[in-house]
Amino acid sequence: MKQPLLAALAIAILPGFILPAAHATPQSTPAPAPSPGEIVAAAPAAEWQEIAADDLLLMMLANGRSIVIQLNPDFSRTHVANMRALARAHWWDGTSVYRVQDNYVSQWGDRTEKKPLPPGLQPTTEDYSLPAKGVAITRMPSRDAYAPVTGFWKGWPVAGDGKSAWLPHCYGMVGVGRNLSPDAGTGAELYAVIGHAPRHLDRNIALVGRVVEGMDALSALPRGTEGLGVYGPAQEPTGITSVRLASELPAADRPHFVQLDTAGPSFLRYAAARANRKDAFFNIPAGGADICNIPVPVKRSAPQ
Amino acid sequence: MKQPLLAALAIAILPGFILPAAHATPQSTPAPAPSPGEIVAAAPAAEWQEIAADDLLLMMLANGRSIVIQLNPDFSRTHVANMRALARAHWWDGTSVYRVQDNYVSQWGDRTEKKPLPPGLQPTTEDYSLPAKGVAITRMPSRDAYAPVTGFWKGWPVAGDGKSAWLPHCYGMVGVGRNLSPDAGTGAELYAVIGHAPRHLDRNIALVGRVVEGMDALSALPRGTEGLGVYGPAQEPTGITSVRLASELPAADRPHFVQLDTAGPSFLRYAAARANRKDAFFNIPAGGADICNIPVPVKRSAPQ
Repeated sequence: MKQPLLAALAIAILPGFILPAAHATPQSTPAPAPSPGEIVAAAPAAEWQEIAADDLLLMMLANGRSIVIQLNPDFSRTHVANMRALARAHWWDGTSVYRVQDNYVSQWGDRTEKKPLPPGLQPTTEDYSLPAKGVAITRMPSRDAYAPVTGFWKGWPVAGDGKSAWLPHCYGMVGVGRNLSPDAGTGAELYAVIGHAPRHLDRNIALVGRVVEGMDALSALPRGTEGLGVYGPAQEPTGITSVRLASELPAADRPHFVQLDTAGPSFLRYAAARANRKDAFFNIPAGGADICNIPVPVKRSAPQ
Repeated sequence: MKQPLLAALAIAILPGFILPAAHATPQSTPAPAPSPGEIVAAAPAAEWQEIAADDLLLMMLANGRSIVIQLNPDFSRTHVANMRALARAHWWDGTSVYRVQDNYVSQWGDRTEKKPLPPGLQPTTEDYSLPAKGVAITRMPSRDAYAPVTGFWKGWPVAGDGKSAWLPHCYGMVGVGRNLSPDAGTGAELYAVIGHAPRHLDRNIALVGRVVEGMDALSALPRGTEGLGVYGPAQEPTGITSVRLASELPAADRPHFVQLDTAGPSFLRYAAARANRKDAFFNIPAGGADICNIPVPVKRSAPQ
């Protein structure tokens, strides 16, 4: 039996690890194709798009962790408007993450449901998709169990059926808790997907954004012991210290984030590489990638 | 603006929650269709199949948590044989979970890679699929980005292309870390999927089982701070106290688990309900479900 490798090579046995080409391939074979990460790292500055400060929600937790959520004002416009109003009213300050259900969602807001909402919130409706003709989807070729069409639009994954287009419930997406229809939620009660994409929720709940930094501050929390992952009496919900829009901060204090242009050449190469990994670790390229396995690259940046 | 509901109804705003029919529907409307969970709860005893004690691996962590892994001896036969030998040799005792990468995997084994393996392990090969003709797949109708055929066989999700059939990397599946090909890993170094299914790993790594209890003891661990989620110098890996086959325990001490027969009528109704949720919460049934969104029901049971 071959011994396990030395510690110096330990990383090589991790799934998904790609050895540097110089170590992985004899001189006589062609260099492996670039990995998805290498393609993103090489994308020129012109293909990175600044995310507006009014679309960045900064959530500070009592445990010292922070989370950055990017809002999507194109879908569920009224929910996003309400979320901006709730942030400006500092409404989430003092609320908590009180539900964490394994392979499903982490949910936060006012667990008591007695905290008065600020005045001026807009009525929301079950407006969970947009007319297809307004959404110029950069289509992906892979089959999808939930929609005839999947692709990207303006930096976001999108699913569609030719009549309408909607956001899919991929890992890290943020949605709005609601009661039974026709209630559509206000935007005060939120959750993030922390498991395999629960795409059956698509078009049944308003999706309003995605976590772009600090995701593990939601996904690695202890799971709740009560039904649906609600925290039980012996569990301490994770306090939320503050939630602010980046646009509320002094300009010098604002974080800056950029997303890779999903209609640009680097993103298309990245998506193709996600579907057909040809780096040294892989023997059989998948030949496809589901829409939630092509996460849109987003990163912190210097002020643009 | 409508006030949030009273605390007594708090649970109703959680995504996926289903109100009892008596509360959710006026008397004049038909009762909602049973939810997937209700179908499973109603499945008769004859449709639940005992899992062999030699296929149950019990992992105790130093933090007091325990994990139960069901082995699959039909795929990657030599890896599973090695895992049984490793468990009988108590080889994993004193090793650790030392890698946790968000939305990907938790990995455990001997981080130092210096612990000698027990004698008698079998050489493993890249035997990551079975000939299709030996695998009688109960087919699911939904499209899949990764395989022409998906379905279930003997209680497990299966993907296939007509020539061969293989296990998919769904949430909770357990695989074998390896070095670059032709190394196929021994079965000593293992990981579990803790995020959206990384199906591009299918047929590139040996899948050997799935977590059937205690999944959150792996998925809710702090993420590693080093590359690929490896724990950094300031992080304490989670110690593994012991790993035993249930068959090693005295008969009276063995846990018993059953899985729902994936070729039986209850499972087929359950799978159809996962694809078309008609309970009160849902406005638009998805019309499909990807293979990793139809987890096979497994539960503890009394001795059969």
